[in-house]
Amino acid sequence: MKYLRKDLEGMVPYHTPYLTEGIILNANESPYNAPQQIIDLYVEEVKKINFNRYPDMDSTLLKDAIAKAYDLKRENVACGVGSDEILQCLFNAVVSKGDKVVVMNPSFSMYSEYAKIYGATPVMADANPDFTFNLDNMLNAIRNSNPRMVVLCSPNNPTGIMLSEDDVRKIIESTDALVILDEAYIEFSGEQGLIKLINEYSNLVVLRTFSKLYAGAAIRLGYALSIKDNIDLIDTVRSPYNVNVLTQLMAKTIIEHKVLYKERIQYFKDQRRAIYEALTKLGIEVYPTKANFLWMKLSDKINEALARENIYVRTMTFNGEKYNRVCIGTPDEVEEFLKVVRQNA
Amino acid sequence: MKYLRKDLEGMVPYHTPYLTEGIILNANESPYNAPQQIIDLYVEEVKKINFNRYPDMDSTLLKDAIAKAYDLKRENVACGVGSDEILQCLFNAVVSKGDKVVVMNPSFSMYSEYAKIYGATPVMADANPDFTFNLDNMLNAIRNSNPRMVVLCSPNNPTGIMLSEDDVRKIIESTDALVILDEAYIEFSGEQGLIKLINEYSNLVVLRTFSKLYAGAAIRLGYALSIKDNIDLIDTVRSPYNVNVLTQLMAKTIIEHKVLYKERIQYFKDQRRAIYEALTKLGIEVYPTKANFLWMKLSDKINEALARENIYVRTMTFNGEKYNRVCIGTPDEVEEFLKVVRQNA
Repeated sequence: MKYLRKDLEGMVPYHTPYLTEGIILNANESPYNAPQQIIDLYVEEVKKINFNRYPDMDSTLLKDAIAKAYDLKRENVACGVGSDEILQCLFNAVVSKGDKVVVMNPSFSMYSEYAKIYGATPVMADANPDFTFNLDNMLNAIRNSNPRMVVLCSPNNPTGIMLSEDDVRKIIESTDALVILDEAYIEFSGEQGLIKLINEYSNLVVLRTFSKLYAGAAIRLGYALSIKDNIDLIDTVRSPYNVNVLTQLMAKTIIEHKVLYKERIQYFKDQRRAIYEALTKLGIEVYPTKANFLWMKLSDKINEALARENIYVRTMTFNGEKYNRVCIGTPDEVEEFLKVVRQNA
Repeated sequence: MKYLRKDLEGMVPYHTPYLTEGIILNANESPYNAPQQIIDLYVEEVKKINFNRYPDMDSTLLKDAIAKAYDLKRENVACGVGSDEILQCLFNAVVSKGDKVVVMNPSFSMYSEYAKIYGATPVMADANPDFTFNLDNMLNAIRNSNPRMVVLCSPNNPTGIMLSEDDVRKIIESTDALVILDEAYIEFSGEQGLIKLINEYSNLVVLRTFSKLYAGAAIRLGYALSIKDNIDLIDTVRSPYNVNVLTQLMAKTIIEHKVLYKERIQYFKDQRRAIYEALTKLGIEVYPTKANFLWMKLSDKINEALARENIYVRTMTFNGEKYNRVCIGTPDEVEEFLKVVRQNA
């Protein structure tokens, strides 16, 4: 690309094919659509939209609904086009060329990608060999690199491990850097998560999303919770009308009816235990998880068999070894997946 | 903001109240909603959405529909959250700290804002005193500053003047910088615009939007047309799933039925002539326009009277003088506006 910034040389556009058939277990999505009651309410809202008018640039009604759900104020909430846009805004507002950003390794690859796009250098804090969190590695990485930002993910994508409150507190207290805690998958854990810490620490931003338990990946809505001073960072650099009317309305409808999703949590708890046990019984290397996906090491033979059956799982390389991240589908989809694994184990 | 990048010091979050009542002539929106036929088709599509699934990250079906409308290929199209996101991506991918970006003055203020957010310095090329385009000022600004990027807007927001094909060619040929031509308002002119030039010049990107004539500001969809190498710039730095499913579907429905909007163009042509003549007759300084808005100088008395009547128009300062940008509403709205102006002229 002739016009690409010199320091981005080597970067290329990222494309993946859009899958509409087969068993799709590679995107950490909910296997179930949003509840019909929510869709019906939403369709009635859509009929009333003035498509010719710009959205409320501050997503006021949506922010109020989110704030209410967590007993916070509107000023503690920022909305974005997925957590992706929030992350991009935070990187853009906070880091300059040459700054360091400490990230967990392995973790969601976009943290490092965005760091690089905004001129910063990612510094990796490795997990233990069994993929549990290594606090010392994290604290050492922070001490040695003096980062401008630290990005944590809990439950961690792609390993599913959760950080303890104690560890997160130690990390936040060890640094003056801005700490981003991405809790995209927290609802699957059945636990409350660490939003409460934003009242204690001025350098913490918690990220949440509608894309996972809330079955709203299609609408692209992520949000940040923090003190006003950090929310202002996002609002200073984001596009004025970043969240469209369609998304604001659907996200508001979802959060106002979030009780409808509660019963789904037990399903994921049951399935992750069942899948873990089934795979362990087959001698497959698989790790405990608090999310809607499991981190495992499937043989090439199994991977090839899954591909032949149009069962899509994610393959990732870590320290030169190939791993898989498999998300929890419907009961039928889980059964199909396990059947192919069993036949090829 | 404690964590804001030092070079952004002084920037603050931009908020404007969301208006739902009164006569709203300050946002250059279409005064008419999307045609009911399009909304009906869309509502049927919404009912079928799998909200739990991520969008097609390449907006393939939408890009194909856009490409078809202009006899281009999919590889010539990039989609974004409004032209705003496309602009942000281009700035992010192309400019580095210290680069110069030449912009028209006056023009859409976000060009300079985005330039600054991405570390560049905007260089202003002033219009003539009567706000017509001054080609010499533009060519001199380019020659003197050796910019990395040039941003043109035609018809220009907020003045409504249109750049001639000849002038645009001279600008593109004068520089190796990437030239962005924002044609957000081109459909109101009744002319074809300059998309055809992307087949001739490798340093031209044309921006278009669904937010204006196509009455889709609510959905936030802008697009860029250029050679593949420039489209790749956008795709390299954008968030993978930037355009949500809801927006992709509505934009596709609109462009496939764009013939339904054709009859609206004559309305804007008639109204801008009528408003221009009415204001001129009252001795008000007003300028010819090819867009759905008019650039004018209303007295403080008129501005205050408009505010009292909840008629919202945009006030902007240029070279220390206050001007107004007033967009064309429905016939009733135009009549209300002119009535208040007449009563206070």
